[in-house]
Amino acid sequence: MTTSMTPAKRQNFERLLNPRHIAFIGGADAAVGITEARRAGYTGQMWVVNPRRTQIAGLPCLPDIAALPEPPDAVFLAIPAALVPAAVADLSAMGAGGIVCYSAGFAEAHDEGRALEQALKDALGDMVLIGPNCYGLINYVGKSALWPFAHGGTCPGYGAAIITQSGMFSSDITMSQRSLPVAYMASAGNQADLGMAEFIDLLCEREEVRAIGLHIEGLRNVPAFERAALKAIRAGTPIVALKTGSSAIGESLTLSHTGSLAGSNAHYTALFERTGVIPVTNPAQFLETLKYLCVAGAPEGTDVLGFTCSGGGATMLADHSETIGLRYPTPDAAAKAALVPLLPPIATVSNPLDYTTPIWGQQDKTGPVFDAAFAHIPVHAAVLVQDYPAPDLDESKQLYLNDGAAFADAARRAGLPAAICATIPENIGQEVRDHYVARGVAPMQGIHETLNAIRGASWWRRRQHEILSAAQKPLVPGRPIGPITLLNEAEGKARLATAGIAVPKGQLTNSAGLLSAATETGYPVVLKMMGPALAHKSDAGAVVVGIPDESALTLAAQEMRAAVARYAPEAVTDDYLVERMAAPPLAELVVGIRRDPQFGLAMTLGSGGILVELIGDTVSLLLPAQPADIHRALDQLRVAKLLNGFRGKPAADRAALVGALSQLAEYAIAQEAQIVEIEINPLFVYERDVVAVDVLMQVESA
Amino acid sequence: MTTSMTPAKRQNFERLLNPRHIAFIGGADAAVGITEARRAGYTGQMWVVNPRRTQIAGLPCLPDIAALPEPPDAVFLAIPAALVPAAVADLSAMGAGGIVCYSAGFAEAHDEGRALEQALKDALGDMVLIGPNCYGLINYVGKSALWPFAHGGTCPGYGAAIITQSGMFSSDITMSQRSLPVAYMASAGNQADLGMAEFIDLLCEREEVRAIGLHIEGLRNVPAFERAALKAIRAGTPIVALKTGSSAIGESLTLSHTGSLAGSNAHYTALFERTGVIPVTNPAQFLETLKYLCVAGAPEGTDVLGFTCSGGGATMLADHSETIGLRYPTPDAAAKAALVPLLPPIATVSNPLDYTTPIWGQQDKTGPVFDAAFAHIPVHAAVLVQDYPAPDLDESKQLYLNDGAAFADAARRAGLPAAICATIPENIGQEVRDHYVARGVAPMQGIHETLNAIRGASWWRRRQHEILSAAQKPLVPGRPIGPITLLNEAEGKARLATAGIAVPKGQLTNSAGLLSAATETGYPVVLKMMGPALAHKSDAGAVVVGIPDESALTLAAQEMRAAVARYAPEAVTDDYLVERMAAPPLAELVVGIRRDPQFGLAMTLGSGGILVELIGDTVSLLLPAQPADIHRALDQLRVAKLLNGFRGKPAADRAALVGALSQLAEYAIAQEAQIVEIEINPLFVYERDVVAVDVLMQVESA
Repeated sequence: MTTSMTPAKRQNFERLLNPRHIAFIGGADAAVGITEARRAGYTGQMWVVNPRRTQIAGLPCLPDIAALPEPPDAVFLAIPAALVPAAVADLSAMGAGGIVCYSAGFAEAHDEGRALEQALKDALGDMVLIGPNCYGLINYVGKSALWPFAHGGTCPGYGAAIITQSGMFSSDITMSQRSLPVAYMASAGNQADLGMAEFIDLLCEREEVRAIGLHIEGLRNVPAFERAALKAIRAGTPIVALKTGSSAIGESLTLSHTGSLAGSNAHYTALFERTGVIPVTNPAQFLETLKYLCVAGAPEGTDVLGFTCSGGGATMLADHSETIGLRYPTPDAAAKAALVPLLPPIATVSNPLDYTTPIWGQQDKTGPVFDAAFAHIPVHAAVLVQDYPAPDLDESKQLYLNDGAAFADAARRAGLPAAICATIPENIGQEVRDHYVARGVAPMQGIHETLNAIRGASWWRRRQHEILSAAQKPLVPGRPIGPITLLNEAEGKARLATAGIAVPKGQLTNSAGLLSAATETGYPVVLKMMGPALAHKSDAGAVVVGIPDESALTLAAQEMRAAVARYAPEAVTDDYLVERMAAPPLAELVVGIRRDPQFGLAMTLGSGGILVELIGDTVSLLLPAQPADIHRALDQLRVAKLLNGFRGKPAADRAALVGALSQLAEYAIAQEAQIVEIEINPLFVYERDVVAVDVLMQVESA
Repeated sequence: MTTSMTPAKRQNFERLLNPRHIAFIGGADAAVGITEARRAGYTGQMWVVNPRRTQIAGLPCLPDIAALPEPPDAVFLAIPAALVPAAVADLSAMGAGGIVCYSAGFAEAHDEGRALEQALKDALGDMVLIGPNCYGLINYVGKSALWPFAHGGTCPGYGAAIITQSGMFSSDITMSQRSLPVAYMASAGNQADLGMAEFIDLLCEREEVRAIGLHIEGLRNVPAFERAALKAIRAGTPIVALKTGSSAIGESLTLSHTGSLAGSNAHYTALFERTGVIPVTNPAQFLETLKYLCVAGAPEGTDVLGFTCSGGGATMLADHSETIGLRYPTPDAAAKAALVPLLPPIATVSNPLDYTTPIWGQQDKTGPVFDAAFAHIPVHAAVLVQDYPAPDLDESKQLYLNDGAAFADAARRAGLPAAICATIPENIGQEVRDHYVARGVAPMQGIHETLNAIRGASWWRRRQHEILSAAQKPLVPGRPIGPITLLNEAEGKARLATAGIAVPKGQLTNSAGLLSAATETGYPVVLKMMGPALAHKSDAGAVVVGIPDESALTLAAQEMRAAVARYAPEAVTDDYLVERMAAPPLAELVVGIRRDPQFGLAMTLGSGGILVELIGDTVSLLLPAQPADIHRALDQLRVAKLLNGFRGKPAADRAALVGALSQLAEYAIAQEAQIVEIEINPLFVYERDVVAVDVLMQVESA
């Protein structure tokens, strides 16, 4: 159990998923629901409740819920929102299992709706509920449906479990023509009771569920999602997520000291990376990735053997693969020696391999080519490019099928995930697709979609190994943030120092103490004026760097007072921070930690100096994070090249850097009750250590 | 006329395109050719030549070419390669028009093939030829085909002209099921005679050709392509190019002084940008962009009005649009006032606009919404998201069609290019697609594909305006490059100075003259040793910067001799370049000009300093280039932010920078007979001027 669902609720969730009986409550929508249950092949008991009609969709109407002969396992509820809470209470009292609440007009609509939704939740008891404001649930494996519209979709006995937050999109998916095996389809609506996490938790361990597809607009409970997603990866069930709303959320970086480095879209990216959820950005890729995972599986790496019977296809395979990091190992001498005798003279032994038309369609000729290639070129996945002719123009279809059969057999013998890829998505019709699904070869549509799916699946496999081999601590839960206090730089640095993060040697003093402070610190120094109105010190003229000696320091302090007075007379104070000037670093990072009401604590790492502003190069991690996570995040930054040694300069001590960042993260977690934001800009990285040169810290006011 | 084709050849090209008669020469392949001509609806005269058969595909065989009753307009030639030149000579002698040479075994195969291909060309005379090693030509408008395989494809009387370099890919395209209007399909094969440029030149002015689609593996004649592409843009015919082979060509930057900045894929990108050719990277996008251009046209800008009947669709529209630079203008108060009374209460006035299900399918309700939106929100293009139900599940199809009709009418009244977009590509079936094509609304498949097509089409429109308003000089033709001499830095800088490019004040001298040279130049100075073995001066220790005074200079020269001797004793010389040290710039650029055998002269601009190595940020231009082209290229670089003023620093004088780069380009063009490469790394950019701090120049040896 990874969710907080009680055993009673869980049992009711199972009843809803595989109902022995369904009660449809409503009018015209109930009629559609009955039709769709029949379309799904449902053979259990169906009742319909409607006080004003005698029969609906051929079933006699019961006048009210009390008239139901026994507590239904599942209820399709399509009555006005205002009547829903009372009906739910009645159903709960009689011991019904679960409800699909198609009715809308709840929290998504208005304030009264929010109150209604709360009343609905309060009335649930041990029942479970999908929705409200949802399309409901189709169980393709068990042949039941609680669904308010015509639905399509196919299931060869296994498939994807798909959960969406848009009813229309879930309907569009059931209408798609891709031979995607689907086991379950759920439209989760407002997620008043059952949410993404609960669906994942229940479905990820079912044998018939080979992958889970999520359409996410926003998550209700991030820690629960993390628990469920990690349960799924342990169960070997990949999750693919289409997150929408990135533009609405707005991921613009705010680069000033008072802003934050990354918006919440970065948080979703970090969550998916952390939990091994494969991100996709468009519906076709969503479906193709699920199809590949369900039919072919997840490759153990990124090395691919590609076959085509056309030079054009081989080139297109190689082009896109290079941009996404799939590799085609070059055939070695032994591979060439084995393949040359099997291929026509015009063929060139390469990978991707164009086996050329003279042997096209001759299974006895192409089969040995496939076998020899698999025997001599070690890879993790195989793909054969084939565009089938259009219906009614299919004289050559059997030739393609012959090669496809030889490929499928050879790939199965080699134990490799295999795909047939049509360069133009529709050039592999339903009959051919179903044929390959039955043979365990994914019939993929579109060259980019195919390669992206292989890439995503192999990435998932790598993350699975990484996650299973590490003891991941759960996320720090988010919570609302109260009033905030900005600490001055000296105080922020003092706190960081207690956390073990090096800061420049320095001293807080007043004008009378400047010279002795500087003598103690050692020249050259940096002078900063501290004050509550000096959040933007550079703008105010409250920072002078590179002060070489006493006379320059005296002058700098004078000029600083004048400059700050011009900026804002009331901002002038007599509090100064004198610091030893930091030596030029190997690299600069920007490091932020921010508390988020939803995601808990997030650490953002960015390439510093002008890079952060010119190229906006940042990556986010959710906390706690393992050192390996921090290493992986650093590798995604451009500045990694500087850290690894650059233009003959020494490499930075990555372990020391990761150690410091880990300490910072641990400090933020330990102080989670207080810390709202820590921003180190810049963090200077040296050959052996790091120094937080400038620090901004915000804490919740006591 | 933009090609070098003679009037006689051009007339024969026309005959080939619209033949009154076709001679099929060959055996089994000729039989297929005849079948395909019939499938295309060809009603002209057909002959078949085969000395060993009496009839093929129902036609009586003629024993030889001489037996043809009159010179055929078109010939489909499918005989062994060795026999082709003689047959071509016979056909030429009798006055045939043009040939599709399906036969393979020419330049693509082996050395003898190259000789055969030359013999074929020599035999052509005034005839034109497609191929050899090609699939040939289909004229969908005029209903003729010279094509060796079953073909599909539809034509509503107009469409795209598609020319590919892969026969298989052209066949795959004819098999695609997208309701793409196609006017002509050509598979160009080896392009021994007719190439991309000739096809564009002839087809771009035909009224029935609304767009041209090119699949390019490599161009035979870049200047001819440029002329043809510019003719097309003047004719108002957009070109879409799918360039394949980017990975094989390899676009890795070589960053050392002796390498070049950008590989030839950058040249193609530059050529497409220069000529307004819309680049795409995958087959589905290729077809969707052509469909949009053929049916909807090219928008005059990037502002879009989006409509959906689902929140999910609106979000997905907005998400991807933001990443590619399409904008959705926000409805103002007047627009809201006009729309609110027309929409259900649950709808929110926004763009994209979810008009919500209560009015779904009610043309009398949705029509006024579309009209009001177009009246109040000024945009350049309109899109309606609709996923149609699957066949046999289409109870709601008419509701979608009702809204689609209202949308089509409103968009037509508003004079806007309009598209219906299915989020899942196949969720808009053939009947619906054809229905919208007939109404002038593009039935688009896939949300990303739709938005990318709109973006590409609006980019083309902008480039059309820019190109028509400028007097573009033709490209400098490429040619083979002979043996190369590397000039030393002092000589390279001296040449640049004559071209009007500022270089640091400096003097070439020997050890005896160092001090007086430095005195004349002014301290601080830079000291560099010059020598033929010192191409990599920094590695050799042959550069010292920031020398403040005489004693430091003397010491630096001593240490330099020692360092170079350690690097390579024979590299030591007594030739020095003493230069005034350049002040820190606002920005650094890397500027390269390189002669390419195929593309002529290309200028590469890159963000300099660590940026070029950390982010590989470069853009290429072909020469000559207008100042506007250079401005546009600079805007694509990250360093543009520095040039525009950054962190309170002044902006660079863009006009001065562009002026200097233009002078450099003019110099390279004037010296084209000699210049092979000029690399300025870095070019320092100041507030008012620029200085070439380091220069490498390579010239062709005399």
